[in-house]
Amino acid sequence: MTGTYRVACQQLAPHIGQPQLNLERSLAAIRDAALAGARLVVLPELALSGYLFRDRKEAHEHAEGRDSPSLAAWAALARTHQIIVVGGFCERLADGEVANASVLIEPCGRRTFYRKAHLWDGETRIFTPGDQPPPVVDTAIGRVAMMICYDLEFPEWVRLAALAGAQLLCAPVNWPAGPRPPAQRPAEVIRVQANASVNRLFVLACDRCGEERGTHWVGGTALVDADGHLLAGGDRSQHPRMLLADIAPAEADDKCISTCNHVLRDRRPQLYGALL
Amino acid sequence: MTGTYRVACQQLAPHIGQPQLNLERSLAAIRDAALAGARLVVLPELALSGYLFRDRKEAHEHAEGRDSPSLAAWAALARTHQIIVVGGFCERLADGEVANASVLIEPCGRRTFYRKAHLWDGETRIFTPGDQPPPVVDTAIGRVAMMICYDLEFPEWVRLAALAGAQLLCAPVNWPAGPRPPAQRPAEVIRVQANASVNRLFVLACDRCGEERGTHWVGGTALVDADGHLLAGGDRSQHPRMLLADIAPAEADDKCISTCNHVLRDRRPQLYGALL
Repeated sequence: MTGTYRVACQQLAPHIGQPQLNLERSLAAIRDAALAGARLVVLPELALSGYLFRDRKEAHEHAEGRDSPSLAAWAALARTHQIIVVGGFCERLADGEVANASVLIEPCGRRTFYRKAHLWDGETRIFTPGDQPPPVVDTAIGRVAMMICYDLEFPEWVRLAALAGAQLLCAPVNWPAGPRPPAQRPAEVIRVQANASVNRLFVLACDRCGEERGTHWVGGTALVDADGHLLAGGDRSQHPRMLLADIAPAEADDKCISTCNHVLRDRRPQLYGALL
Repeated sequence: MTGTYRVACQQLAPHIGQPQLNLERSLAAIRDAALAGARLVVLPELALSGYLFRDRKEAHEHAEGRDSPSLAAWAALARTHQIIVVGGFCERLADGEVANASVLIEPCGRRTFYRKAHLWDGETRIFTPGDQPPPVVDTAIGRVAMMICYDLEFPEWVRLAALAGAQLLCAPVNWPAGPRPPAQRPAEVIRVQANASVNRLFVLACDRCGEERGTHWVGGTALVDADGHLLAGGDRSQHPRMLLADIAPAEADDKCISTCNHVLRDRRPQLYGALL
């Protein structure tokens, strides 16, 4: 597990209310990533359903269980193409509840699930937040953590993944485009870069594009190395695109940034009590 | 305290072994900032002494107490010009020990001290680390926090200041220039921007310049607003420079970034236990 692997983000444009179209596009995206040599592909948040549900009822109609046909189709491609698939979907819970969820599917068939813990805006009316830390999965290409969109704005959350040994953090996101100074790099990308550098881990944040119910998106999919430097993306694009990078996830095990400094061991948790 | 105030960073080039020169330059810098209308000025880390001490003994020779003539001279200008001064100095402790310290001096004469808690590289052989969180001082222009350089690479530390109510974080820094991709914005600046945005507070990071014992510096002094956007600086400059911005620190009290989101209240500290 010291090798270099190609990884991909597939910035897609899901259409709310068209789950079959979204599924087909996601399958094509997985296949294209595999054909480009990727061993892992990240899809956007809620890639199968679209994002801007009117209410919980509509979300529930578009939700699916962890054994749904769509996820089985992702898993079939993961097996066929020997590619790890990370993507977001709307998870049906009991009693009419839904979660903003993601899954990591390995070629062997193992599935790891995550439910977004920090909910954005209208999501708070729709989704039940997760109450588990970001999972860290020991895969064939390295230890991969997973979280979703607004979770990335909590450095505490990324730190938990790093402390649990993550080498590569995969984040399906849907970054709504808001008013911002045009000359500035998107703050969403800046935060991804900082998260990577202070933890010395790779981050793949896969955004969406395509107007949905009046909302536009940053389209800022970003692949960032363990120094926080951009490997691909980070600019704005309103079009679907595949972004690739060749990374050696094990490099993230080297947390030393000077002769005497180690980004995790230099922490002083005994002084951080007020964080809790 | 809802007004707009001009604030300044004075990127200087201290010379190790020339404390009188460093003092004179720092006094000129404070004066110039005040004449430019600034109500607060940040100077670099170890602005009075220079940075690259050979050993603790040399540092001790350049160290000074909290009542030193140099700090008294800063305080005199703070009073005369009604300007808040934040700057770094080498603090003499008992038993031959020294701290990488900073002081915030208000026009009224009150002085607040801080000792760097996260030490960088060779500093670990020289300085005794601080064991107190970043102070937050209720000043005439707003609540000002203070930390030093490598402290900024610990989002936990910045979060503590935000949770304690800081509106404006002042950070004297000395960012050594290392090898890095030339086309990328300095990672140091990226981290400052992310720290500002995830906490919705203003950050002033005042770097140094001028070769010292073979080391060069990023010269990346950055003034960042509470959205994480650059107000001034953030590029590399190998020359002394004064950077100014007009800010309304009270804007940082608005932690809401959407109808339903508040960057501090959205934290889920009950899930962050593994941070300690």
